[in-house]
Amino acid sequence: MQTKAYAAQSPTTPLAPFAVDRREPGPRDVAIDILYCGVCHSDLHTARGEWPGILYPSVPGHEIVGRATAVGGDVSRIKVGDVVAVGCMVDSCRTCPSCGEGLEQYCESEPGFVATYNGPLRGGENTFGGYSAAIVVDEHFVLTVRHGAEHLAAVAPLLCAGITTWSPLRQWQTGPGKKVGVVGIGGLGHMGLKLAHALGAQVVAFTTSESKRADAMKLGADEVVVSKDADAMAAHTGSFDFILNTVAAPHNLDAFLALLKRDGTMTMVGAPSTPHPSPNVFNLILGRRRLAGSLIGGIAETQEMLDFCAEHGIVADIEMIAMQDIEAAYARMLKSDVKYRFVIDMATLKQAA
Amino acid sequence: MQTKAYAAQSPTTPLAPFAVDRREPGPRDVAIDILYCGVCHSDLHTARGEWPGILYPSVPGHEIVGRATAVGGDVSRIKVGDVVAVGCMVDSCRTCPSCGEGLEQYCESEPGFVATYNGPLRGGENTFGGYSAAIVVDEHFVLTVRHGAEHLAAVAPLLCAGITTWSPLRQWQTGPGKKVGVVGIGGLGHMGLKLAHALGAQVVAFTTSESKRADAMKLGADEVVVSKDADAMAAHTGSFDFILNTVAAPHNLDAFLALLKRDGTMTMVGAPSTPHPSPNVFNLILGRRRLAGSLIGGIAETQEMLDFCAEHGIVADIEMIAMQDIEAAYARMLKSDVKYRFVIDMATLKQAA
Repeated sequence: MQTKAYAAQSPTTPLAPFAVDRREPGPRDVAIDILYCGVCHSDLHTARGEWPGILYPSVPGHEIVGRATAVGGDVSRIKVGDVVAVGCMVDSCRTCPSCGEGLEQYCESEPGFVATYNGPLRGGENTFGGYSAAIVVDEHFVLTVRHGAEHLAAVAPLLCAGITTWSPLRQWQTGPGKKVGVVGIGGLGHMGLKLAHALGAQVVAFTTSESKRADAMKLGADEVVVSKDADAMAAHTGSFDFILNTVAAPHNLDAFLALLKRDGTMTMVGAPSTPHPSPNVFNLILGRRRLAGSLIGGIAETQEMLDFCAEHGIVADIEMIAMQDIEAAYARMLKSDVKYRFVIDMATLKQAA
Repeated sequence: MQTKAYAAQSPTTPLAPFAVDRREPGPRDVAIDILYCGVCHSDLHTARGEWPGILYPSVPGHEIVGRATAVGGDVSRIKVGDVVAVGCMVDSCRTCPSCGEGLEQYCESEPGFVATYNGPLRGGENTFGGYSAAIVVDEHFVLTVRHGAEHLAAVAPLLCAGITTWSPLRQWQTGPGKKVGVVGIGGLGHMGLKLAHALGAQVVAFTTSESKRADAMKLGADEVVVSKDADAMAAHTGSFDFILNTVAAPHNLDAFLALLKRDGTMTMVGAPSTPHPSPNVFNLILGRRRLAGSLIGGIAETQEMLDFCAEHGIVADIEMIAMQDIEAAYARMLKSDVKYRFVIDMATLKQAA
């Protein structure tokens, strides 16, 4: 099936119209008409070839919301017409211990899970993501969306920004009685604030910009600390059960590690392109603290997160764009000029000549 | 009570005879005739003023084994004549959450626990450690030694090197079915190998020196990997439940983080004086791995460790020295020329003119 899409043909060419071939749906496949696709920083890194191993043409996009248009004979959970979603993964081995535990993002078979774009698919072909009119995905990797129809665009970022923050918040058991920090108030951080708040934790937002204070409070913070203010930071020494660090730019990790209680954990969900200043091991030793990482989330927990968000009325704060404006959106993302996620209205691609 | 001791009078003067005043035992105190004191790297750092806040004169020593010579009226657990031990702590607040949980090493009241040397005691006086003929310690911080009399010198290093490795091995639930790495085969590492082996784990020793291979196997390793051998390292990628890193010298942490399974932890028990190369956050993210720290151990777990070691016939590998030879021992420690811990025979101090 030929499908309209937007692709980068090389690291230095702007994204432009491109036709991708989608496979005919097999017995376990769901064919999806894409309604909305969120714009993640990973899309930009991939399109621009800023990570190793990028295949071209490259069709980014892994925050996909759409409608099922066809289902294979063995598909049981999804019906034609259902509102569905696809996140960062479209396949995995299904047999390794991590897949068995529903943590497909840590699939232990070479080469790991198949990413929604720049996969490659088992068998060798590149995968093409959500900047396209349609996609065909194995049912196992298709989520059900229970939000109302008016919220579907703002659901899209839950598929990456949402699950990336949800998974560590749940792994480290944040909730009532727990004090949780969220470092950085961008695409990931704004979801972290909403989710940690909805989970019942006491939430402190950390930002470098005083200007984000009011927004952070609206997003769910009980308190906002400007991290350049050493006194404000010191007032929280040794008090956090968990800190979710969403900042990929290199920064001083010690300033946050020192805020953890004994046995507290700071989980990094972004990786900088040049290293953070090396953290002081004494900060780990003196409170038996932990510096950890977390990668998106498994399919079961993604569905759990979507259902939790539907129940609690949580969506991302978004700015809708046309497919044709993707390069302008990238330029604004590079300046952090978005509150807090761009979402592509895929009608603009389908209607283009 | 005037007590013979050895002290550094300044960072640049060699340790030499010195008389310390020990308090008269109060109702909760145990007076201890010191038989043996292990020589820890911290002793050297302190004597030489390599850490901030060192008070002089400085009497190091926190791996103390001795015999109770007097007990206060409220002392219930220790009797005169008992073989007892004192480790890195001689007091703490006893009321904070960490003290309440038996984790006095993380005492949350300012200024934290009172160290056996360079305390200072609550009230402001400096504390003087185990390089002395006797010490007076609150019963709560006095351990019972159940090893046979012939092993008492080799028990001394359990009080710091032993508990420092035992605590994280227990915290992270190493035992049968778990694959455990021990990085560095020195004073701490050699205890880590013995303890992890006795706990029933599959134990891999990591060393930079091929020459330590045979010793590491004798100490309890099931396998030895020379960490400079990239192929040997790669063969263990993603396979460890836990890695205990005892190396305080700056080194590449990524090489070891990559060997952890999903949800695996590497715990650092030594802190370098200049930072390690900054670890790659991707190594944490891609396996939801953790870099952690751990500080000695609590009093309850120290007793647990001593009892476990008595039951399993575990002691440190030691080289006995006279008090008068402490400077020569320090010089050899700086060259890692000791298998694996010096222990001072305190009779040599008591008999000196």
